[in-house]
Amino acid sequence: MTAYDDQNIFAKILRGEIPSLKIYETDRTFAFLDIMPRSPGHTLVIPKAPARGIFDIADDDLAEVVKSAKRVAIAAKKAFAADGIIIQQFSEPASGQVVLHLHMHVMPVNEGVALLPPQTRAEDMDVLADHARRMITALGS
Amino acid sequence: MTAYDDQNIFAKILRGEIPSLKIYETDRTFAFLDIMPRSPGHTLVIPKAPARGIFDIADDDLAEVVKSAKRVAIAAKKAFAADGIIIQQFSEPASGQVVLHLHMHVMPVNEGVALLPPQTRAEDMDVLADHARRMITALGS
Repeated sequence: MTAYDDQNIFAKILRGEIPSLKIYETDRTFAFLDIMPRSPGHTLVIPKAPARGIFDIADDDLAEVVKSAKRVAIAAKKAFAADGIIIQQFSEPASGQVVLHLHMHVMPVNEGVALLPPQTRAEDMDVLADHARRMITALGS
Repeated sequence: MTAYDDQNIFAKILRGEIPSLKIYETDRTFAFLDIMPRSPGHTLVIPKAPARGIFDIADDDLAEVVKSAKRVAIAAKKAFAADGIIIQQFSEPASGQVVLHLHMHVMPVNEGVALLPPQTRAEDMDVLADHARRMITALGS
C-alpha cells in the first residue's frame, strides 16, 4: 500500500499550518467542519496520528475516532435538529477518498432533504462560523 | 428517541431465528454478508448488544464494531482484490437506515466500478456462499 504522505491538507491542519473550523478535540482525535458541506453541520473527524485510511490506522486510534464521531453525531442532531446521521469513511482514491489522511464524515440529515453531492461548493465562511458555534455549544452542553 | 425494538431482523439473526452468511464474530460483534450487496463482499458488522444506532450504542460496543469493520475491510481488500473500501453507517430512517439495529456497511470498491444503489436486488445464494468462503479464508489468513 502507498505510504502516508505528511503533506496532505489534514496533516497541515493538524500542524496548524492551515486554519480549520475546529469543533472538538481529544488526545487522539480532531474534529472540524467540512468547508464543502453536504449538509449543515457536516464534520470531519480525524486521528492525530498519521494514518492513510482504514488499512493502516492503529486500532486504538480508530476506536477513538469513532467515539469522537458519536459525540459529534449527538451534538449535530441537537444543533441542527437533525432527523438522522450518516457516517462515511472512504479508503483509497477508488472509493472516493480525496485527502489521504483517514477521516470519518459525520453528516446530519433531515427527512426529505438529500445530501449535496460531494464537494459541490465551498460554503460561505460566515455560515460555517455560525455552524461551528452551534456545534461547539451542543458539544459543551 | 424511539426505543430499540428486538423484533428487527438483525436481532433475529443474532438469536439464530433467521439464518445469515456469517463471516466473522467477536465477543461483542457479529459480521455477515449483505444479501443485497452493493458490491461483491459487502458486509454488515453489528454489535451483539441491542443498539438502534449511533445515538444509543455504548462506546465500548461502537469501538469493537469499528475494529471488526477494519478486520473485515482488510480481508475484503484481499478476497476481492479491491482498490478501496467504503464504510457507511446510517442512523434513523431519515438517513436511509432500514433495519433499526446499528450496522456498519463495509463495501469493497474497484476503480471505475460504481456501487449498486442500496437494495437493488438479492444476490444469488451460490454466489453469496462463495463470497462468504472467500471472506472467511481471508479473515483467517
